[in-house]
Amino acid sequence: MKPRTIDKTNLPGPDFGHTPPGLISRSMQPFIRNNSAIRAMFEEGLRMQQEFGAENVFDFSLGNPNVPAPGAVEEAILRLVKDSDPVVLHGYMPNAGFPEVRRTLAEDLNRRFGTGFSEDNMIMTVGAACGLNILLKTILDPEDEVIVFTPYFMEYRAYVQNYGGLLREVPTLPETFLPDLEALRESLSSKTKAVIINTPNNPTGVVYGRKTLQQLSEVLLEAEERFGREILLISDEPYRELSYDGCEVPFVTEFYHNAVVCYSFSKSLSLPGERIGYLLIPDTVTGWKELFNGAVIANRISGFVNAPSLMQKAVAEVIGTDLTETVGYYDRNRRFLYEELSKLGFSCVYPEGAFYLWMKAPEPEADFVARCKKHCILVVPGSSFRGEGYVRIAYCVSHEKLQASIRAWKQIAEELFG
Amino acid sequence: MKPRTIDKTNLPGPDFGHTPPGLISRSMQPFIRNNSAIRAMFEEGLRMQQEFGAENVFDFSLGNPNVPAPGAVEEAILRLVKDSDPVVLHGYMPNAGFPEVRRTLAEDLNRRFGTGFSEDNMIMTVGAACGLNILLKTILDPEDEVIVFTPYFMEYRAYVQNYGGLLREVPTLPETFLPDLEALRESLSSKTKAVIINTPNNPTGVVYGRKTLQQLSEVLLEAEERFGREILLISDEPYRELSYDGCEVPFVTEFYHNAVVCYSFSKSLSLPGERIGYLLIPDTVTGWKELFNGAVIANRISGFVNAPSLMQKAVAEVIGTDLTETVGYYDRNRRFLYEELSKLGFSCVYPEGAFYLWMKAPEPEADFVARCKKHCILVVPGSSFRGEGYVRIAYCVSHEKLQASIRAWKQIAEELFG
Repeated sequence: MKPRTIDKTNLPGPDFGHTPPGLISRSMQPFIRNNSAIRAMFEEGLRMQQEFGAENVFDFSLGNPNVPAPGAVEEAILRLVKDSDPVVLHGYMPNAGFPEVRRTLAEDLNRRFGTGFSEDNMIMTVGAACGLNILLKTILDPEDEVIVFTPYFMEYRAYVQNYGGLLREVPTLPETFLPDLEALRESLSSKTKAVIINTPNNPTGVVYGRKTLQQLSEVLLEAEERFGREILLISDEPYRELSYDGCEVPFVTEFYHNAVVCYSFSKSLSLPGERIGYLLIPDTVTGWKELFNGAVIANRISGFVNAPSLMQKAVAEVIGTDLTETVGYYDRNRRFLYEELSKLGFSCVYPEGAFYLWMKAPEPEADFVARCKKHCILVVPGSSFRGEGYVRIAYCVSHEKLQASIRAWKQIAEELFG
Repeated sequence: MKPRTIDKTNLPGPDFGHTPPGLISRSMQPFIRNNSAIRAMFEEGLRMQQEFGAENVFDFSLGNPNVPAPGAVEEAILRLVKDSDPVVLHGYMPNAGFPEVRRTLAEDLNRRFGTGFSEDNMIMTVGAACGLNILLKTILDPEDEVIVFTPYFMEYRAYVQNYGGLLREVPTLPETFLPDLEALRESLSSKTKAVIINTPNNPTGVVYGRKTLQQLSEVLLEAEERFGREILLISDEPYRELSYDGCEVPFVTEFYHNAVVCYSFSKSLSLPGERIGYLLIPDTVTGWKELFNGAVIANRISGFVNAPSLMQKAVAEVIGTDLTETVGYYDRNRRFLYEELSKLGFSCVYPEGAFYLWMKAPEPEADFVARCKKHCILVVPGSSFRGEGYVRIAYCVSHEKLQASIRAWKQIAEELFG
């Protein structure tokens, strides 16, 4: 093919006599406007690094694992590429994923949680965000309500709106940040199609224990009877493997018949860029086969088609890998940061899981975020999670970075507490 | 965590006094019903393999490349895994993809097509299906129309409906299967937001040449002026690299200002399971920065987040790899099948690209598909592409399989033509 130089200025374009209506849909316009703010924040961070040097900027705003993927992942990828037929390794498989991969992951859950899942309960997904989306697409009619507990990962709002659903926020209890079940009971209605929980929690680091899940289940069961309608409990669990002090993360399907799980290997195996996870639909869920088929079809027609094939096989190969080192790294960061900041007079929720510290802002939230920034510390304002009056500090950074930041935290504490 | 055995039959569930409304949304119910037919066909194929032996069943129904990924892909993956920092290799990057990957791919296009793209025009996507979906999400308001030319890949219908849009079918010309531009002119309206083309074409194998694209552009420009509205031309090009006899596949952005390209490496690099491609938005597109930002946001909130990270880097590493072997394999199959079937009296469109043969059914389509099946040949009925009276034969199979099938084709020809 002969290369040609195109003068773009001469490319034909219509001569509108007036300002033409743009290409952007009405529903996307607010997202694009809002995005400028995020971009401005990001560019401000870059500017700070240029002005003060990267080593003097403490960016605790991102949930991007700093611990490298376990060596077993690298070994598995090398082995798979060397030993597999590339037509199979990189080829199409059933849209739900390779059956043997799904079986391996189901059996691992059965071993760990005494469950009875098979490959027929598992759909491999392009991360947990894909799992949530294909599930919501399968269940939501316009105006259906989905309940979340504040504070929460705000992308849930977009996911629900993608399918015409309405997000309904229910508070958590002060101090514990566990669901306010009385408020939940009052918010459930004949319009409620699903409730999303996220445990271990982003942004609070709280883990929902057995008692919480049991009580939550009772409220949902009562509502199902009251309204004569199925209510799906969706557990978003990218942080399942990250819990500390031996804190149990109970498996939600034990407590409620209509519970499904969205999982991601992003955090446990430090593979956030690879987009690999699964959606688990137990056969206790009413009409589970239809829901399973629906989610597989939604996976296809939404454009995911299937989870990346090499990574499907890689996570199955390393399942059961010892995560002590990964969890240990975050644990050391967690204890260090919690203790240091508490000593300085800051008030934080003691994190049982995930890799976030949820800190009470000692002054109006926006002022506090600005003050932190003045000291080259970047944190996410609580209002970004509908958790006003707090900030989220992501401690998935190098321990040295955390240590180096203490001087800045001290200065902030002195300014505030004298 | 202590494993426990759960008796699912005792798991609490509500006792509805009546049949409860299920969990499936109204919009997904027809898809689930329809899916049973596809499943039945698939199971019939399996049954045939069991009854007659896999070697005696000729499955030409799937567009799954049989040529393995070029060795360079394997080498690139091994090199990347061995030499890269895993935190970067498997980590988050900007949602549009690694900037250096996008730059490499843009420069490759510039070299080959004399274009002037940069990383700011490229969004790495989870395959072309993702590119189409995030684009349609960004532009479609409910009731907006999207035009396609029959026959077409039917998933387009679902993609458009995902965002409340309406698909409008416009015929191609008899024999050539090139767009009927007069019919297009009549179908364009103030509701038209986009036109999708697919060249080289699935299912016909036709390539749109310079004259076709030039005339198509003129019709669209005239409509933009007539309706005072931007009309996006979306070129879906997973088969771009697969063209034969030196047939040129002109680059669509040269002909029309509002043209964007959805590309996938699924076919050219035989990586369909890996879900890796890109969306190209030239800066000649009206409001291209907004459209770019919108598509990146849609990529995030639809749950794709970003294209798989290792595969992004791998395709950039192998860009420019010699595809002679891959294309040559399909070309041999193409010529062999076209010649053999023509000799037997079948009437086929001579394919200029892709890896499909579009054959006229010599009797009512359903009867012909059934007759083929009786002879253990599986083809896709044309009506699955809204191309009634034809069948699609995918020749991305081993050459030996193709050769072995001729005996069965001969028997079919004898039955039909005596």
